[in-house]
Amino acid sequence: MHLLERYRIVRDRSMAICNPLKIEDFVVQPIVDVSPPKWHLGHTTWFFETFVLKPHVEGYKEFDPDYNFVFNSYYESVGARVIRTDRGNLSRPTVEDIFRYRIHVDQAMGEFLRDEDMSTALRELIVLGFNHEEQHQELLYTDIKYILGHNPLFPAYGESIYGAAAPAPSHTAWLSRPEGIAEIGFAGSGFCFDNELRRHKVYLHAYDIAREPVTNREYLEFMEAGGYHDFRYWHAEGWDWVRQHKVEAPLYWYHIDDRWLHYSWQGLELLPAGAPVCHVSYYEAAAYAAWRDARLPTEAEWETAAQELDWGRRWEWTESAYLPYPGFQKAPGAIGEYNGKFMISQMVLRGASEVTPPGHSRSTYRNFFHPSARWQFTGIRLAR
Amino acid sequence: MHLLERYRIVRDRSMAICNPLKIEDFVVQPIVDVSPPKWHLGHTTWFFETFVLKPHVEGYKEFDPDYNFVFNSYYESVGARVIRTDRGNLSRPTVEDIFRYRIHVDQAMGEFLRDEDMSTALRELIVLGFNHEEQHQELLYTDIKYILGHNPLFPAYGESIYGAAAPAPSHTAWLSRPEGIAEIGFAGSGFCFDNELRRHKVYLHAYDIAREPVTNREYLEFMEAGGYHDFRYWHAEGWDWVRQHKVEAPLYWYHIDDRWLHYSWQGLELLPAGAPVCHVSYYEAAAYAAWRDARLPTEAEWETAAQELDWGRRWEWTESAYLPYPGFQKAPGAIGEYNGKFMISQMVLRGASEVTPPGHSRSTYRNFFHPSARWQFTGIRLAR
Amino acid sequence: MHLLERYRIVRDRSMAICNPLKIEDFVVQPIVDVSPPKWHLGHTTWFFETFVLKPHVEGYKEFDPDYNFVFNSYYESVGARVIRTDRGNLSRPTVEDIFRYRIHVDQAMGEFLRDEDMSTALRELIVLGFNHEEQHQELLYTDIKYILGHNPLFPAYGESIYGAAAPAPSHTAWLSRPEGIAEIGFAGSGFCFDNELRRHKVYLHAYDIAREPVTNREYLEFMEAGGYHDFRYWHAEGWDWVRQHKVEAPLYWYHIDDRWLHYSWQGLELLPAGAPVCHVSYYEAAAYAAWRDARLPTEAEWETAAQELDWGRRWEWTESAYLPYPGFQKAPGAIGEYNGKFMISQMVLRGASEVTPPGHSRSTYRNFFHPSARWQFTGIRLAR
Amino acid sequence: MHLLERYRIVRDRSMAICNPLKIEDFVVQPIVDVSPPKWHLGHTTWFFETFVLKPHVEGYKEFDPDYNFVFNSYYESVGARVIRTDRGNLSRPTVEDIFRYRIHVDQAMGEFLRDEDMSTALRELIVLGFNHEEQHQELLYTDIKYILGHNPLFPAYGESIYGAAAPAPSHTAWLSRPEGIAEIGFAGSGFCFDNELRRHKVYLHAYDIAREPVTNREYLEFMEAGGYHDFRYWHAEGWDWVRQHKVEAPLYWYHIDDRWLHYSWQGLELLPAGAPVCHVSYYEAAAYAAWRDARLPTEAEWETAAQELDWGRRWEWTESAYLPYPGFQKAPGAIGEYNGKFMISQMVLRGASEVTPPGHSRSTYRNFFHPSARWQFTGIRLAR
Repeated sequence: MHLLERYRIVRDRSMAICNPLKIEDFVVQPIVDVSPPKWHLGHTTWFFETFVLKPHVEGYKEFDPDYNFVFNSYYESVGARVIRTDRGNLSRPTVEDIFRYRIHVDQAMGEFLRDEDMSTALRELIVLGFNHEEQHQELLYTDIKYILGHNPLFPAYGESIYGAAAPAPSHTAWLSRPEGIAEIGFAGSGFCFDNELRRHKVYLHAYDIAREPVTNREYLEFMEAGGYHDFRYWHAEGWDWVRQHKVEAPLYWYHIDDRWLHYSWQGLELLPAGAPVCHVSYYEAAAYAAWRDARLPTEAEWETAAQELDWGRRWEWTESAYLPYPGFQKAPGAIGEYNGKFMISQMVLRGASEVTPPGHSRSTYRNFFHPSARWQFTGIRLAR
Repeated sequence: MHLLERYRIVRDRSMAICNPLKIEDFVVQPIVDVSPPKWHLGHTTWFFETFVLKPHVEGYKEFDPDYNFVFNSYYESVGARVIRTDRGNLSRPTVEDIFRYRIHVDQAMGEFLRDEDMSTALRELIVLGFNHEEQHQELLYTDIKYILGHNPLFPAYGESIYGAAAPAPSHTAWLSRPEGIAEIGFAGSGFCFDNELRRHKVYLHAYDIAREPVTNREYLEFMEAGGYHDFRYWHAEGWDWVRQHKVEAPLYWYHIDDRWLHYSWQGLELLPAGAPVCHVSYYEAAAYAAWRDARLPTEAEWETAAQELDWGRRWEWTESAYLPYPGFQKAPGAIGEYNGKFMISQMVLRGASEVTPPGHSRSTYRNFFHPSARWQFTGIRLAR
Repeated sequence: MHLLERYRIVRDRSMAICNPLKIEDFVVQPIVDVSPPKWHLGHTTWFFETFVLKPHVEGYKEFDPDYNFVFNSYYESVGARVIRTDRGNLSRPTVEDIFRYRIHVDQAMGEFLRDEDMSTALRELIVLGFNHEEQHQELLYTDIKYILGHNPLFPAYGESIYGAAAPAPSHTAWLSRPEGIAEIGFAGSGFCFDNELRRHKVYLHAYDIAREPVTNREYLEFMEAGGYHDFRYWHAEGWDWVRQHKVEAPLYWYHIDDRWLHYSWQGLELLPAGAPVCHVSYYEAAAYAAWRDARLPTEAEWETAAQELDWGRRWEWTESAYLPYPGFQKAPGAIGEYNGKFMISQMVLRGASEVTPPGHSRSTYRNFFHPSARWQFTGIRLAR
Repeated sequence: MHLLERYRIVRDRSMAICNPLKIEDFVVQPIVDVSPPKWHLGHTTWFFETFVLKPHVEGYKEFDPDYNFVFNSYYESVGARVIRTDRGNLSRPTVEDIFRYRIHVDQAMGEFLRDEDMSTALRELIVLGFNHEEQHQELLYTDIKYILGHNPLFPAYGESIYGAAAPAPSHTAWLSRPEGIAEIGFAGSGFCFDNELRRHKVYLHAYDIAREPVTNREYLEFMEAGGYHDFRYWHAEGWDWVRQHKVEAPLYWYHIDDRWLHYSWQGLELLPAGAPVCHVSYYEAAAYAAWRDARLPTEAEWETAAQELDWGRRWEWTESAYLPYPGFQKAPGAIGEYNGKFMISQMVLRGASEVTPPGHSRSTYRNFFHPSARWQFTGIRLAR
């Protein structure tokens, strides 16, 4: 596919995701983890302007120099950043301003991408920009769900642009894998993030891994058995988290009139028993596994078995901390801050979710979040 | 003036104040003290719906019962309230929803007020609603200024609907008042808040009070003399506040290229030296007075001298804590929560400000805020 | 009485109060309001060393210059202070070190006070030192009670050096006072704090004031009537305090096996129904009064009626904020920080308590605390 | 060695470590990580009483049942625990009480251990008790250092019972290790903690590892090159930590009169340039390594190379998160809470320190702390 065609598809999809929103929905930031949708739209645009247009297009006219204060995120190399928690306080630039910003940059990019004769490094940077925006498309979905799902009026979003998720198969079964040396990490010729490199050998001991993710029905059994009230299943840090936040169920679950409902894209509705459990923290995933006398897989176990697993509807917590692979190298310059600087105090998630953009997932992909995070579409797979 | 005419003037003014805003500006809540403008518009409407229309108009159809969760404020008698700090997280109801809510209530009120034949109690309640909305009009101004003045783009608001404030006279002079018994508190036949009652005698010792409020020029002398760095002028609590928040100047002041600017309705501009100093806390007011070997007036001193003072552009901190007058009585029912429940840990401010609605000020008016508040249009008057 | 004799009585009493303590009891600081007993013993000694011995005794040898970092309190004029919350982290100087410090200073003071031929100012300063130490004697009692009463072993202290408090009379009656001008503030020739000056006129409206403080029995009626769960009786700030801290009873009260116990000097024991209620905050006092359709007296009402009241066992919350009297003047120099700097955000308490040193109380005495404080021996008197 | 003999050696050493302390030093808790020394003495005694004497010695008379509230730590299976942050508020039981508690338990244990005829499980439990107390001996040293080193009087402790640490060799050199399968984890017949099991294969890529830990001199080069002020060397979380706490040097370092001092067992003294750097966080260790274009070793790399390294004076941060080994099993019952529940959000440290009890260290030992911890004797070793 031509770069320009790909650019247009990616950029359009961000707008399509926001299509059902009211202007007010673009503005708020109910928790620090969530960014206002208008910020995502501006920040992904700022990426192309800052790393592609300004250094590579002679005579490019910056849309507004002040936007560097607003739409920079963690790229400390590029000017002073706005404190993350302040994003929800900024009513300006308006949504309309940001739409015009996108059009301005899209026009310049359209012009620029007409000619694909460019260095490999620049091409890779542009492809990184696509993947960067796809990551923010998933965050747009998770953040929009949080904003609407925590409003006392529980407004519906409508249908996700990817359509409804398929139901889960009804049975669970274990896949057994033998002991030995395996290879993990990205190997192909396409795009990958720096944290997937380099491909390397690991030694795996024999293990079993579930073919299917844990369902809501199975998770309810844990809840009904008192799982949230028995410290023996929990990490000490997880147990403190449960008690401090009075956690009794996954995020978005509501117990009303003796039935379990959850907030979905259509508003409050009955919990679908057969769907994979969603919006759980690492602490909950690990406690559930302990209650089942099992554990979570490591990321190497997961990746090695991936092609025989049913995956793709939930980001699955693994028992692996997010750390550099042997031989990991940061990219030079500002792009080098992309992943390496977060390699502490986070756990790896593997798979993809119902709101991951098509084409963005692969079995070597390393997603990562703090163990308490659950506004993502996170789920559980067992190993033993 | 007919109730209906007064109703329309008051309600229109709230909308006029918001006229220069973008939709996004209606939504955010940068600090707890500030409420989103759309909340003010909804809350003042909810007042008339809850206290006038629902109990007194047969067949009145509530606009949306869920709005009780959103627009209730501190009236604990009337249903569960939304936690105040959450107001800035609510993207819904939208601004347009709230405009329609206002129209819905305004139509019903218009119908209802066509006939002024009603009990005195009800009439007083409606007049209370006018004064309530006027209070929120002042808060709209203070909150809008905070929202725009803390945006890194420093957007202009335009002209205040009341026009620019007149310049202060250039000289300061003391007015001397003799010892003796005085009377303070509301006495007339018009509207007053419950906290202005009942009129009562106080004993005043001889005092001097400045005819004019302190100017920016005079306050700058305090700053240049190191006032913010010498604990001797400060209350212990004020000194902690200065150091914790690294306060160096009034709110909205910026020291850029060796000049003092401030954020005004037109954006950043040169500090007008002769204008009354604005946006100072009680701590700063008291420290300034101590540095001048003076003090702040008590509210009784202020009220007794009021008609000989130049007042009305700033809310002036007094040395009086906000406490009940002798014989103070709470009104029965939910309205009784209006003022009495705040009579602790606040200081009284007297006067009015450049954004106080016309007709809303009087010399017996008791405004009150926590001593650290400075997003209001607060200023300083000396006594000794 | 000779200064020297008075000095010895005061200094000995501080030691006698600490006599039942274990060394470990001298060290801890369970909350910020509480200071470790060894700090009180050191700080009161530091007062005499710093303000009397060092400036007035030629050749006086300071015990340890580093003690200035440790035993200074809020006197910002005299060197850098230790952050208050750190006091409980300091294991050194040891209790024994501090005892030796007291002996060192007492010997020098004994020498110095043999000759009473000194300036009036110096004599007044020494008397201020006596009163200062007496204030800390009361704090020693309140802080020791907190330290022992919050230990899960509930160790007994033994008998207070002042003996057990007398029982309260069994009836409550109102004293009525007419409207008119009264005078309050210190007038005699003895010692008073600067905040009791100057004596001045006030205008009082007719009022009733209870002759007796509220008893535990009466307060229990408020609790049993649901007083802690009905917001209507509370200030907004008090209601937040009740809910945030889940307050259900006065401090030191424990509901065990369906009976009310409290921690007393002898450990846990049955609540004495007839004793004046103790260890309540201003919020609780005001809520109780509101529930009784009454209010708290102002400090002027209290002082004017004092000689006809039964007072002295509890510090009684008044409805007056702690503010300067007309004509109040700070003393020059470090001593001037004594009281004035606290005149914000505190309420006045009048009376004295069962742990106030004999001779330290008078009807013009103005004690003050933040409205949430209740580790002092605070109680309630009604007015209307 | 007989169990009884070993018991006495271990128990005596805890007392010897505390020998230079004043009673007051036993009581305080300046930060949450630190426990008061008297708590360590009581808690290790409680271990033997609770897990050995009460279940296995008929007729054993518990010293004081209330001690379960005070000396329990994280063993949630055994009764309610005291909130950890409260330990520094408890003046009782006194140090003398705890000494008597130790004697009471030591006598009963002496009686019990006279006959070594017991089940293997019980013998293992007792040996676990020895290792548990040895862990607390190291904590006693780290906590005592914190208590004395944060007192403004900087009191000396005296000589450590293990004597002064030997100087570091003056050169640094890399050891190279080839790619291949290695085995790590405990294999011998003696004692190990559950987290060292089970021994298992790992695949290692070729690596270099420094023979010597990083010295103060080398670390100063990082500081002088601006290492603490250049975000490029830091994890995002580490950079936030540096800025929030204004970190400029390792813990206990003081820059006075243009020289670097540190607090040592003898008080403040000149920083020894050749000694291994100590009291650094994981963030600092990783930033230093990044500045040297190197990294920290993984725990598998460390263990595989251990016998050729100079180790034992510092706990060395590794690049490995603290996670279960393949096949890890929790012990059943309360003992099972020992290690597994902490396997989240912590990094592994390998080696031992100058205050690790003799006989307590081995190359398979997995120590672990949160990446911000630096009151332990932590240091840095490079790999690449």
